[in-house]
Amino acid sequence: MCDAKKGHMRHAVDLSRQKMDEGCGGPFGAIIVRNGEVIAEGWNNVTSTNDPTAHAEVSAIRAACEKLGSFDLAGCEIYTSCEPCPMCLSAIYWARLDKIYYANGRDDAAAIGFDDQFLYDEVAKPMNDRSLPIEHVDVPEAREVFAAWDTKTDKIAY
Amino acid sequence: MCDAKKGHMRHAVDLSRQKMDEGCGGPFGAIIVRNGEVIAEGWNNVTSTNDPTAHAEVSAIRAACEKLGSFDLAGCEIYTSCEPCPMCLSAIYWARLDKIYYANGRDDAAAIGFDDQFLYDEVAKPMNDRSLPIEHVDVPEAREVFAAWDTKTDKIAY
Repeated sequence: MCDAKKGHMRHAVDLSRQKMDEGCGGPFGAIIVRNGEVIAEGWNNVTSTNDPTAHAEVSAIRAACEKLGSFDLAGCEIYTSCEPCPMCLSAIYWARLDKIYYANGRDDAAAIGFDDQFLYDEVAKPMNDRSLPIEHVDVPEAREVFAAWDTKTDKIAY
Repeated sequence: MCDAKKGHMRHAVDLSRQKMDEGCGGPFGAIIVRNGEVIAEGWNNVTSTNDPTAHAEVSAIRAACEKLGSFDLAGCEIYTSCEPCPMCLSAIYWARLDKIYYANGRDDAAAIGFDDQFLYDEVAKPMNDRSLPIEHVDVPEAREVFAAWDTKTDKIAY
């Protein structure tokens, strides 16, 4: 294991400790690195900012994108103190990060009350088998908007 | 189908059209409803705000939580112009919304260039089978932080 990786991970873990101690939220930290340089930090601040999406990875992605002025983090890697939940994993894909490094695993998270495995199981199920009810509401205008996007000439695809 | 559901969905779809036309991002809108009242709106503003997590549902959740001063949206429902991607679906779980209503499906989204099915497939895979590389970096301090959370007496669990 190269020292740089351990160093970056310690940075993410230090954040998780510091922000937990400050009462920001759960014990999770993340950093985003480009060409060996840390370009952004994130930490869980769900309970302190009343934002259930403010996990460490999502927060780090938002900070990195703001810093770079781009919604595309290709060429960057994320170090997170814990394996990402499905929300954060998906955000990492949307941000096009190159690689994930993690320390604690989902079992470690479950042991302290963060049951990401439940969410992984739910996301993988057919929609009608999930615990969360979902219902189709057929509104024809919805398809018309998609058709308009498809032929829009000035769109920014992503 | 009750008229109220169609009316709320048209609201979400109208948002998707309006914000797409304004150049905010992709053609997606969502609203959050509590006791029949619309308490928040959201729309895709990924490309205009350089935030890859700013999907319609995530944006609506953030707005609703800010309005209510809570990270918990139990008792609320979300109407989204398109079936949520795994990031948004997970965010809906984290926000504890009661129910999802959607109009366009993931196949409709794929047809206009938003391949959520790929992401659903990736999230469901064992981590080493995914296209996105992931590597464990063992830093013992990470487990120590989790242990500290477990015994923290003033934490806000969620």
